[in-house]
Amino acid sequence: MSKSTATPIRVIEETPNYWRAEFDYPPFNVVDGDVFQALQDLLIRMETSESLRVIVFESALPDFYLSHFDLTGKLGNVMTGIGPSGLPILMDTFVRLTKVPVVSLAKIRGCVRGVSSEFVLACDMRFASRENLKLGHPELGVGLHPGGGGTERLPHLVGRGRALEIVLSANDFDGEWAERYGYVNRSLPDAELDSFVDALARRISSFDKPALAAAKNLVNEVSLPEADRLLAAFTSFGTALGWPAAQKRVGAVLERGLQRDTDYEKNWPDSLGALSDRRIEEG
Amino acid sequence: MSKSTATPIRVIEETPNYWRAEFDYPPFNVVDGDVFQALQDLLIRMETSESLRVIVFESALPDFYLSHFDLTGKLGNVMTGIGPSGLPILMDTFVRLTKVPVVSLAKIRGCVRGVSSEFVLACDMRFASRENLKLGHPELGVGLHPGGGGTERLPHLVGRGRALEIVLSANDFDGEWAERYGYVNRSLPDAELDSFVDALARRISSFDKPALAAAKNLVNEVSLPEADRLLAAFTSFGTALGWPAAQKRVGAVLERGLQRDTDYEKNWPDSLGALSDRRIEEG
Amino acid sequence: MSKSTATPIRVIEETPNYWRAEFDYPPFNVVDGDVFQALQDLLIRMETSESLRVIVFESALPDFYLSHFDLTGKLGNVMTGIGPSGLPILMDTFVRLTKVPVVSLAKIRGCVRGVSSEFVLACDMRFASRENLKLGHPELGVGLHPGGGGTERLPHLVGRGRALEIVLSANDFDGEWAERYGYVNRSLPDAELDSFVDALARRISSFDKPALAAAKNLVNEVSLPEADRLLAAFTSFGTALGWPAAQKRVGAVLERGLQRDTDYEKNWPDSLGALSDRRIEEG
Repeated sequence: MSKSTATPIRVIEETPNYWRAEFDYPPFNVVDGDVFQALQDLLIRMETSESLRVIVFESALPDFYLSHFDLTGKLGNVMTGIGPSGLPILMDTFVRLTKVPVVSLAKIRGCVRGVSSEFVLACDMRFASRENLKLGHPELGVGLHPGGGGTERLPHLVGRGRALEIVLSANDFDGEWAERYGYVNRSLPDAELDSFVDALARRISSFDKPALAAAKNLVNEVSLPEADRLLAAFTSFGTALGWPAAQKRVGAVLERGLQRDTDYEKNWPDSLGALSDRRIEEG
Repeated sequence: MSKSTATPIRVIEETPNYWRAEFDYPPFNVVDGDVFQALQDLLIRMETSESLRVIVFESALPDFYLSHFDLTGKLGNVMTGIGPSGLPILMDTFVRLTKVPVVSLAKIRGCVRGVSSEFVLACDMRFASRENLKLGHPELGVGLHPGGGGTERLPHLVGRGRALEIVLSANDFDGEWAERYGYVNRSLPDAELDSFVDALARRISSFDKPALAAAKNLVNEVSLPEADRLLAAFTSFGTALGWPAAQKRVGAVLERGLQRDTDYEKNWPDSLGALSDRRIEEG
Repeated sequence: MSKSTATPIRVIEETPNYWRAEFDYPPFNVVDGDVFQALQDLLIRMETSESLRVIVFESALPDFYLSHFDLTGKLGNVMTGIGPSGLPILMDTFVRLTKVPVVSLAKIRGCVRGVSSEFVLACDMRFASRENLKLGHPELGVGLHPGGGGTERLPHLVGRGRALEIVLSANDFDGEWAERYGYVNRSLPDAELDSFVDALARRISSFDKPALAAAKNLVNEVSLPEADRLLAAFTSFGTALGWPAAQKRVGAVLERGLQRDTDYEKNWPDSLGALSDRRIEEG
């Protein structure tokens, strides 16, 4: 499979008030520096549009929403560049998404792991396919930990115990459990997901922008994590990327097929419990 | 239908330890200045009773718990007067309810929207009819936003994503979804609701008042929103009431039958997505 | 039934990375000064082990996980001694458990009330038997209130309304409701509980200790209650222990069979609503 040269995100303006942003970056919608650049470009459009009320983020690939951080290192300036908010690009992208006066709906099908989970956690609402969802934080399984807000946003959403389970187990959550835990707003039968989200988006897009902006801002004031906590996680994650044990584990999953083999890409968290030092060394 | 001249709240003292407060303000239990005055009077009785442990808030009308803020403007001193806590009456009423050393149980059937949702969110516990509940925040649909604590209390209760959905969608939540989201403690089959709440109230009313007061106070210390956040929402709401776009939308729902027509009163949030500027202007 | 003279907690080292700690303190696993001393000893081992990643806390008794605080007064130095953190032993034990760089899983069957609920709330994750769970805070029913973190940890986990219901109702929660409220991570069919928790523990135990420690610490920073709030509850609880009304109620449950009669021990919260002053005086 070859990677498309087109931009990783296609924007469809359903109406001036309601846009859809479609991730289309085959084969797996891996989140690399180009995806972050496209998100940065889109954020400027969202911040400066006077008409836009609602944006739906969805995927053109049936089995991958956004798969995960690029583990081959094509991260562009994501870890080192500084965004318009004064925060590193990785954080800046998610923080601005939470604060922009536009309502963001994540319509989720397929695999959504690690930094991709952090993307949907930064969206205002999450609606998932009940039958087709693999959502989680596999970072621990490759010797790392979440660094883009997962450890800061999950506890508020699902409580400390379930947040620790999500983060420390490195397991996938399916549609049913993601809803029960409050990880997503709700999981709908796949056949109803498009119409549900479209109806909600059109409804919200008919409301007045100043009222939407004021309401989102009031909720934000009591529910967003502090920037210093986000920054602490980001910094710790940057350090972890240099740990030899982590590099070994990352090497092992790449060797087994991550970002190359479709079957492994779909199911790689299943293998993380057997990725111990001994096995890595034995190959 | 004509409005009763009696007080909007009837108090039944089941025992010295356990009271029931029944909203009886036909035709719809609209929340106007008189309802707030009755709540203020009741709060003084609750605060000064030495025997009272538990109060159950319920409705005499089968289809309306408390419907919503009076949109015809009969708000008395709710927005301008100052209550005993030093806060505006609207806030004062809810803040004192959360802090009074009496356990408040909302037993909910029927429509509970906007400021009425904020009333039940200020109660200590919420038990709803599984079959007969329309609970939500339609303010966005009339160009406003919650101003009496909804945006501050919901995120702690249901998480940021579901709080934003409740507030920004302006949709009703039924018994099943209100329970799943944690918006209410639980939804019971309608036939079991009375006996469940009565048994719980009698049980709690048998406990010692100093222990109940200490426990409620400890929970409050880690779960109530800050007064300055509540005040920010109240102030923003006061401003929104003067927005021309909001006044237009309020006029449109009143013209369609709000506070007059029973069918529209029951289902008015359904119409809010089609209340766009063009349609309003076209009448 | 006679009390074992052995240590109340047996530690099984499944691997250097994964231990199981089994409460075995018949007849009821009552939480007294000896249990706290054993937990203190175990915490030192957990804090100083370089290999340990995961510990599972479970019970050797089928119907009692840890029953509740010893109400006959055999509390050792739990209320008066100071632990390594500088906090009173009761608090010190739970606070250090939340912060130790080892992942703690509570695998719960049977009765878990009062201080025992506070123990599982201080564990990182809680997995319960769907058929065999009686989890709750009966303190109000004996004139007291939670003093070891229950009032501080529950609101973050289940929201203010459900936290107040758990604390003020003094009722048991079964497997289904404990999961719906988020009081436990999830409740599994009893026959699947052991294999589920063992698989999760082995998976986590294969991950790198620095990554686990960093992730747990990041989640802690945004989800643990403040020490001053925990201390306020502890101090208030200490005062309540001296209230004559509480001593009367404690005397009444002991007389009825608490810590002596197996049937009463299993079901004593059922009787708390009928433990009013008059009935206590009449015997």
